[in-house]
Amino acid sequence: TNSVPLSVGDPMVCILGSGDFSRSLSSRLRCCGCRVVVGSRDPQRLPPGLFPEGVELKTQRGALEGKGSLVFLALYPEHYPSLLTLRPLLSGRILVDVSNASSLKQEGLSNAQRLAQMFPCSSVVKGFNGLSAWTLLTGAYDHSRQVSNELSVLALAQRLGFGAVDVGGLSASRALEEAPLLLFPSWRGPLLTTMLLFSFFYLYIALKNVLMPFLDRAENNLHHLPLITVNQALPAVALVMLSLVYMPGLLASVLQLYRGTKYKRFPDWLDQWMCARKQLGLLSFLCAALHAVYSVCLSIRRASGYMILNAAYQQVKAGVVDSWVETQVWRSDLYLSSGILGLGVLCVLALTSLPSVGQALNWREFTFVQSGLGYTSLVLSVAHVLFFGWDFAFLPRAYQYYLPPVFLLSLVLPCCVLIGRFLLLLPCCSVPLNRIRRGWESKQNKPERERQENGAVFGDV
Amino acid sequence: TNSVPLSVGDPMVCILGSGDFSRSLSSRLRCCGCRVVVGSRDPQRLPPGLFPEGVELKTQRGALEGKGSLVFLALYPEHYPSLLTLRPLLSGRILVDVSNASSLKQEGLSNAQRLAQMFPCSSVVKGFNGLSAWTLLTGAYDHSRQVSNELSVLALAQRLGFGAVDVGGLSASRALEEAPLLLFPSWRGPLLTTMLLFSFFYLYIALKNVLMPFLDRAENNLHHLPLITVNQALPAVALVMLSLVYMPGLLASVLQLYRGTKYKRFPDWLDQWMCARKQLGLLSFLCAALHAVYSVCLSIRRASGYMILNAAYQQVKAGVVDSWVETQVWRSDLYLSSGILGLGVLCVLALTSLPSVGQALNWREFTFVQSGLGYTSLVLSVAHVLFFGWDFAFLPRAYQYYLPPVFLLSLVLPCCVLIGRFLLLLPCCSVPLNRIRRGWESKQNKPERERQENGAVFGDV
Amino acid sequence: TNSVPLSVGDPMVCILGSGDFSRSLSSRLRCCGCRVVVGSRDPQRLPPGLFPEGVELKTQRGALEGKGSLVFLALYPEHYPSLLTLRPLLSGRILVDVSNASSLKQEGLSNAQRLAQMFPCSSVVKGFNGLSAWTLLTGAYDHSRQVSNELSVLALAQRLGFGAVDVGGLSASRALEEAPLLLFPSWRGPLLTTMLLFSFFYLYIALKNVLMPFLDRAENNLHHLPLITVNQALPAVALVMLSLVYMPGLLASVLQLYRGTKYKRFPDWLDQWMCARKQLGLLSFLCAALHAVYSVCLSIRRASGYMILNAAYQQVKAGVVDSWVETQVWRSDLYLSSGILGLGVLCVLALTSLPSVGQALNWREFTFVQSGLGYTSLVLSVAHVLFFGWDFAFLPRAYQYYLPPVFLLSLVLPCCVLIGRFLLLLPCCSVPLNRIRRGWESKQNKPERERQENGAVFGDV
Repeated sequence: TNSVPLSVGDPMVCILGSGDFSRSLSSRLRCCGCRVVVGSRDPQRLPPGLFPEGVELKTQRGALEGKGSLVFLALYPEHYPSLLTLRPLLSGRILVDVSNASSLKQEGLSNAQRLAQMFPCSSVVKGFNGLSAWTLLTGAYDHSRQVSNELSVLALAQRLGFGAVDVGGLSASRALEEAPLLLFPSWRGPLLTTMLLFSFFYLYIALKNVLMPFLDRAENNLHHLPLITVNQALPAVALVMLSLVYMPGLLASVLQLYRGTKYKRFPDWLDQWMCARKQLGLLSFLCAALHAVYSVCLSIRRASGYMILNAAYQQVKAGVVDSWVETQVWRSDLYLSSGILGLGVLCVLALTSLPSVGQALNWREFTFVQSGLGYTSLVLSVAHVLFFGWDFAFLPRAYQYYLPPVFLLSLVLPCCVLIGRFLLLLPCCSVPLNRIRRGWESKQNKPERERQENGAVFGDV
Repeated sequence: TNSVPLSVGDPMVCILGSGDFSRSLSSRLRCCGCRVVVGSRDPQRLPPGLFPEGVELKTQRGALEGKGSLVFLALYPEHYPSLLTLRPLLSGRILVDVSNASSLKQEGLSNAQRLAQMFPCSSVVKGFNGLSAWTLLTGAYDHSRQVSNELSVLALAQRLGFGAVDVGGLSASRALEEAPLLLFPSWRGPLLTTMLLFSFFYLYIALKNVLMPFLDRAENNLHHLPLITVNQALPAVALVMLSLVYMPGLLASVLQLYRGTKYKRFPDWLDQWMCARKQLGLLSFLCAALHAVYSVCLSIRRASGYMILNAAYQQVKAGVVDSWVETQVWRSDLYLSSGILGLGVLCVLALTSLPSVGQALNWREFTFVQSGLGYTSLVLSVAHVLFFGWDFAFLPRAYQYYLPPVFLLSLVLPCCVLIGRFLLLLPCCSVPLNRIRRGWESKQNKPERERQENGAVFGDV
Repeated sequence: TNSVPLSVGDPMVCILGSGDFSRSLSSRLRCCGCRVVVGSRDPQRLPPGLFPEGVELKTQRGALEGKGSLVFLALYPEHYPSLLTLRPLLSGRILVDVSNASSLKQEGLSNAQRLAQMFPCSSVVKGFNGLSAWTLLTGAYDHSRQVSNELSVLALAQRLGFGAVDVGGLSASRALEEAPLLLFPSWRGPLLTTMLLFSFFYLYIALKNVLMPFLDRAENNLHHLPLITVNQALPAVALVMLSLVYMPGLLASVLQLYRGTKYKRFPDWLDQWMCARKQLGLLSFLCAALHAVYSVCLSIRRASGYMILNAAYQQVKAGVVDSWVETQVWRSDLYLSSGILGLGVLCVLALTSLPSVGQALNWREFTFVQSGLGYTSLVLSVAHVLFFGWDFAFLPRAYQYYLPPVFLLSLVLPCCVLIGRFLLLLPCCSVPLNRIRRGWESKQNKPERERQENGAVFGDV
């Protein structure tokens, strides 16, 4: 093969341990032009060809006799004490602890903190633990969870093509070690909200349309439960969730107007709510899409076939030549149209939340899609529900058992959001708000800050 | 914490201004191993912890007394004159102007040009303005809009993980400053085309099926307008748009054949058309998908229920035991099948236009998907329309009021494209075309160019 | 313009040839701060402005008189011999051969090997050939197919923002040269499996429902072929394919249990099967989605309209007031519900297989989605089929012509997978399996290996 001596400027990296992670990391380091030496407890026993060409394989002591200042510890944390004999060789070097926590909520020190206690003369750095051996091998980029807090390690991560985030000192290492064990932490709240809303609406509809008719007049609607009731609860959940997406932005605007500055932090619950908007929106889209699929399946249900046959029998017996009701035709066509268009707009919104699509948008396009298309979708969804309700909300029989119809309940929050948004668009609100977002502050806040700064709008997207 | 002295080779970057952009940029620079000093008008007044650890916070003058040759101006452009007193300190340095235009189509000089006039002894560079503070913080990669024109700035952008494009001197700075204000510039033409086509087909169908029957025999079809007419216009738009995707490739091939070389530039309108093919294709897919959704909703319309009941009444009254028409069954099954398959293929095509999917394809796979699957989808769509039309095109009543049926109109362009493509596949065209694409030129072009070059095929995808 | 002298440390790159690839590569290199000199056979004949500003344009000999050690050959391989006169200038340098094979399965040496023979004193490197000129220009990142085998070239690729993979010596160059000509090599096996399964089920159903009834009692069901039969075969294919996704993981677990170690390689067929799981899953999703679309289209078929009308006629004639069958209503609602939910879960799974979505997941999330949601979807799909079958499997008329119903055939493999999975979850299997995956080995394997290693689980996902 055509090998050429390595340039002296290439960094030298030492890896202790010869497992899967060590093998993958050494491949990636070699690809990026680093010199790699691997220290194993017993290098003779390793089968040849395990490591890529160009990686030096030595004993642990031999590997540490080289000059590299970076040492990766690719061992299970329970084997860290076995390195104590190498303490003199490790002193003055940067030890990268790539281990993960073995379980959540462990007591005592984190792995990295125990390591720092064992090797007080070394710099212990936490990092690379969010990456699986698989990610290292396949060379996936754009992995935004990689974290570390040491500049030379950050630079190396950068060289290997990973995004690196400095998260502060070793006190943060527990959070880092537990990160790969977390299961969709940002989805927990939104998922819980969806489930609670769905349970409420499902039980409410089951009470109104199944239980009460059965108690009242022994009408057996049990077959509504698996499909019909689900399909009545889903659109209500979707609509309420969609309004929850736009509620925190409105609250933030009101708060900024009231405080007269954008430089004060929002309360924690509002911050968290704003960070959950993407997840709330996607779950709303999921419910809306399921509602659409359930609805188009209505006509292939056996029940709908039976109902048409029975209706045909009744029509023939009653001698009605034409059962056409023009208003009902208009009603159904209008609510179908607005529903389809609302879902279509929501679908475009969901697409732009794909990382690769969203990154191709500039700031104004992103705002247009998230805010402009989002409110369009909300208006169309509200229209869908209003057309569906038609004049039903004014009939006494819609309030049987003193329970208002579900579509009315689901309209409360969305209408609040739309009215709030409309009020904020009036010049008396929008003019001071725009001034505040460009850095202006009301008199009582003024002395605290300079006015010369530049910055993108952060408050409300 | 375990801090280690920074290596001397790390670049030193100075940022003037302490707003959101300054904070985000300094975080990102720190993560990538740069030394950062921030110059504020009044550093004492800034709350502690605003900037990440390791960022030096000084007065503007103090910050500029350091050695870094790169100075970012993170101020609003209206505050640039306040820097005039620092002119001696800024001379000989590279000033990076990150500001955006405040509105489109401003007169006079661009922000960067005015800055260059104020500081004639500094090198003014435009850049980083396409990035929002949000992108800087979250570390999104692959942002292809980042532009700049200075090598050391390009290298820094590269280091921060952004793609950088050199767009030339300061004369291009206006375009850069206006870029973040643009709203989907590449979608404007295709969207306009879609809207015009939709308006034409919608009005044509409304005229033929609603207005004329009303004038002619007072038939009230107004309820067609919200759903039925839309669903008749959408497939026509989708089909014409799909043929517009493949038309420019054919024209380019014909032009290359006629000119006998691939080295002459195409006319501007053809270049722009070819660049709009992806958008045309996605909008065609959107129309086709909406048509599919509208169509499956047809059976849950109230109107379809009424029509079936009335038909059942008629059948019973007329005493028809079996109303089965075999040819109609075949017709509907065939056009449904071809429509579903055509949309499925189009869906695969749309998926590969997602940035992250398309990048995983090699050149041959990309060509296979875009050209091979694209034409398959066009053929299936044309078959869908032909099966839908069946023998209807030969009946006189299809041409009521001398207006041909819509499906015939929508077939004109697709058939031209398919015939043109077929002709170009004949050896008399494909052989010289392949030779031209590999660099061959006809005799009259030959002396102008060397023949030795290598290159990917650019003309036709 | 504001040009500043380039730092001496910037690498110098020489490109021979002035075609599309040369132009694109030089743009990209300039953007990343490299110095570029292009050597053309006749630089005077090139139109001005063809290359970006800052690129030096010289004769081939003049370009090679510079100092850069990297020389890209952007020529067609058939012109390599024309460089023989430059042999002294090329000796000691690294020649990067970017050419592709002109066709698959060529005999003799690869382009890179022939080049190495022509220039024995140069280091020949294969690379950058997977990139099209288009990718180079648009700056697409994350292109994981880029391959090369020379450290300085790897470092340059890294600098240009491409992932680079070292694949070994020149003996691998044929594979590299042929890579861009391959058409979805990883999809070949799964696609073939899908087609074979579809053919089998389609022919089986056509035999049972169309051919046999025709031979037996001259019943004409030919109109079943285009849509009904396809829609019966698709769900069977989807279900079998989904079980094929989870089969190899089970086999691997059994093999690990039997061998008592995770350090022995799986047999080749199992390795290949495991690598094809993503493709098998996506094809299963495609079949399931097509089945869903076909099913919702059933109610807009002409045939379904005729059948309802005829049924209404029969009901009226027979004087049946109410044809409602409660069990049939439950059956249809239950199989629709489980089918919709199963497809929804499969859809989430398919979404996470998008590169940009999958990369945002950590290891535990990825496992949860692929394994947890995958088995949920399998269970829901099996429930969908069981509800669809209802008590039909116990009726003699389901076995007409001694052919069991299709849904029973399609249940065999999925039930095996579910039972196998359940057995592996029992403590007697799961406890030793987890120990093995953490690196434990049974006694007979123990002496061969050290126990100290760290690593992600590779065996089963």
